[in-house]
Amino acid sequence: MTTADNSIFVGNKPFMNYVTAVVMQFTTKNAESVIVKARGKFISKAVDVAEVASKRFLDNIVESDVKIDSEEFKNEEGKEIRVSSIEITLSKKK
Amino acid sequence: MTTADNSIFVGNKPFMNYVTAVVMQFTTKNAESVIVKARGKFISKAVDVAEVASKRFLDNIVESDVKIDSEEFKNEEGKEIRVSSIEITLSKKK
Repeated sequence: MTTADNSIFVGNKPFMNYVTAVVMQFTTKNAESVIVKARGKFISKAVDVAEVASKRFLDNIVESDVKIDSEEFKNEEGKEIRVSSIEITLSKKK
Repeated sequence: MTTADNSIFVGNKPFMNYVTAVVMQFTTKNAESVIVKARGKFISKAVDVAEVASKRFLDNIVESDVKIDSEEFKNEEGKEIRVSSIEITLSKKK
């Protein structure tokens, strides 16, 4: 478990905002690991963020864990909907 | 490594086609594992397919592995683009 500070939640801001946020965690803040999280349609974008940050902008960073999950809840019309989520952990290579 | 038969490649067909395909692999074809794959914007849909198939339609199936990757290549205009991919392995619980 890491603190909330090390999590980047990917949503509808511009793509490079998230990449920069991930890179900054490792460079400026010297984090040991960063978790890139997203839900629903932003899952694809989160994978892109993790891939671009770790492979184009950073050295010595690996995707050490990828988890997917989902939760079901009732929407406003009382219909049950399921929303998927992803958590990608990026860590410094040992 | 599984044979190509056990892979479901998620694209732009209707969502339930893929869920049904996954479920059929386990039920009709008695597969031990199925790999749900997707690239680019279809990654979110692949996660949804894996979640709905394993949690709503199947018992005793777990997501045993999730891998993400990306490859970089030149598009028609000679610009380098990176496309992400995901592979979600669903397996029978031991």
